Amino acid sequence: MMALTSDKQHGVVQQPLATSSVAVLRLLPHGVELLDQTQLPFTVTYVTVTTPEAMVNAIQTMVVRGAPAIGIAGAYGVVLAARQQAMQTVKQRQWIRQQAETLRQARPTAVNLMWAIDRMLSCLDRSEAAQLSDQACLAQLEAEAVAIHQEDVAANLTMGQHGAALLPTQARVLTHCNAGALATGGFGTALGVVRAAFAQGRCQQVFADETRPRQQGAKLTVWELMQDGIPVTLISDGMSASLMRAGRVDAVIVGADRIARNGDTANKIGTYTLALVAQAHNVPFYVAAPLSTFDPTLANGDGIPIEERDPAELRCVGDVPVIPDSVPVWNPAFDVTPASLITAFITEKGVFRADQLSLLWPTGSSA
Amino acid sequence: MMALTSDKQHGVVQQPLATSSVAVLRLLPHGVELLDQTQLPFTVTYVTVTTPEAMVNAIQTMVVRGAPAIGIAGAYGVVLAARQQAMQTVKQRQWIRQQAETLRQARPTAVNLMWAIDRMLSCLDRSEAAQLSDQACLAQLEAEAVAIHQEDVAANLTMGQHGAALLPTQARVLTHCNAGALATGGFGTALGVVRAAFAQGRCQQVFADETRPRQQGAKLTVWELMQDGIPVTLISDGMSASLMRAGRVDAVIVGADRIARNGDTANKIGTYTLALVAQAHNVPFYVAAPLSTFDPTLANGDGIPIEERDPAELRCVGDVPVIPDSVPVWNPAFDVTPASLITAFITEKGVFRADQLSLLWPTGSSA
Repeated sequence: MMALTSDKQHGVVQQPLATSSVAVLRLLPHGVELLDQTQLPFTVTYVTVTTPEAMVNAIQTMVVRGAPAIGIAGAYGVVLAARQQAMQTVKQRQWIRQQAETLRQARPTAVNLMWAIDRMLSCLDRSEAAQLSDQACLAQLEAEAVAIHQEDVAANLTMGQHGAALLPTQARVLTHCNAGALATGGFGTALGVVRAAFAQGRCQQVFADETRPRQQGAKLTVWELMQDGIPVTLISDGMSASLMRAGRVDAVIVGADRIARNGDTANKIGTYTLALVAQAHNVPFYVAAPLSTFDPTLANGDGIPIEERDPAELRCVGDVPVIPDSVPVWNPAFDVTPASLITAFITEKGVFRADQLSLLWPTGSSA
Repeated sequence: MMALTSDKQHGVVQQPLATSSVAVLRLLPHGVELLDQTQLPFTVTYVTVTTPEAMVNAIQTMVVRGAPAIGIAGAYGVVLAARQQAMQTVKQRQWIRQQAETLRQARPTAVNLMWAIDRMLSCLDRSEAAQLSDQACLAQLEAEAVAIHQEDVAANLTMGQHGAALLPTQARVLTHCNAGALATGGFGTALGVVRAAFAQGRCQQVFADETRPRQQGAKLTVWELMQDGIPVTLISDGMSASLMRAGRVDAVIVGADRIARNGDTANKIGTYTLALVAQAHNVPFYVAAPLSTFDPTLANGDGIPIEERDPAELRCVGDVPVIPDSVPVWNPAFDVTPASLITAFITEKGVFRADQLSLLWPTGSSA
């Protein structure tokens, strides 16, 4: 399913073959190229970040967003740190570790970021223990980051197959936010399932929640699906109940930012609302996420930190003010959907009900 | 509770005393003055319409909106028609009736508009039967329209008292869209209850749903409550479930555009979603509406026509495009909340559960 390009003339170090028509991020010899998701859908533009600080900023300002994509971006950020200086001394390696910690804290909710940073730090530890040369250590870190990227795409492709099999033929799928190629290494979690189902002729229609305040559904999901010719209709977040009552939705599929051991799932604000609406209409509600999104250290969703973002996101649309700055706003970026509302989890290891998730985490394991 | 001004120097024909600090619409000798709600919150500006055609346009473009306010505006529109020409001949009176029919069809969902037009036509019929002079007939129509306006404010004030008594002390109320002074003759249905409760010290906090696509919650409810010094915090439509799960909402109160005989209630899109969320968290869900919003000719909500509006409302925010024109959009302006999700109806006749609504409509009555 995966292959490396040898497209040296474009300066690509290693790059999974595109599996959707959207390229989100890639490691280049001189930096990390990111599709600037804040400019979509009207402007398709790429930015190249060359320092870990710039990567932190890109993550915080949502130039790159989506739990798996943030994880990959964080891993590439560690590569950028390692490229900035030699790693011969303890002090130099310590500086890289500090950069990794800053990257880890760029956003709090998506556990993929912490998971990816942990993998990069373990890689650094191993290189250190093996007393590798600077160049060899950097090569190891680059390989690890690219592996994280490639494995994510591979997991997405596998999830797509598992998930598509759950859908009826001619399925009409409702999704929230963007859990697509733009949110991952390049295929998508929820939209990966949609892509796979569409390729099999099993998905006739996607409905995309607008997803206020950042409108990732309107700006990203709609754009991404239109690139691939998958029929998509935009609704506002408050329309899902009417749509389901009209019998126009066969399944809801969303991504996730962090899934606790019991299946409680943090995802973009509005997901919990949507899950309640789905339950009321007996519409199956699926969460599609790779294992890197699971946090088996948390017994349930109560421990998931929920990021609260700038009130300006709700006071404005884009840069245009809708209400005065003086208006008090509550702006949590995520909510937690209780496991009881989730029909099943679609992972690269298969499809699990919440009460089966313990199969993924043998007793006593914490990762 | 009500009084007429004698403020002839400002050209006011008859005007209920303001009961909130917001003046929405009033009949003047030379036209009908409307607060232009499309310009809020940044610009407080009034427009004066002088023809029934201009009133239809003002209703359709939502310069004036909110079911009770639309009803009053429609009644005033008939007055404008009657002022435009003599009513001596059958043909002339027929022209006024045609204008009334056009006004009735300006928007389809809020039954208050049809109810108010019916009242105005009955008034015209009576004047005709009594062979009143032109001037006397016009005076009757003006008086009827002003009575519709005054009765609406009076009903709001009574509803406010009934509704406030339902709330716990220090209540935190979540509302959707704008069912306030701006949506009515001048006090509000849902926000009338909030106003009354706040005056009694029973309401400490209002949460306002943004209410996409037109953002009446953000633009109108927040503005209106801030004018009166009532604490309000804005949330997006997808945040209600998180807010309730956090135990921060004691009651949901919304208005209505049409209530069927069984209590099924059409209101701004997203209301049904909110009602499902409230039920899941055992938060009482109240609909505040005057009798003019009830449609006893409909057995249930299936017969309520749901307006679908211009997709541009969802593609843009204000005038700013967010997504391309080519994106398919579903944009129903209203949804229907099943009576089973509504804790009680707050009316000027008291508070009723859905199974008690038949008390309002004696068997065999259809209005």
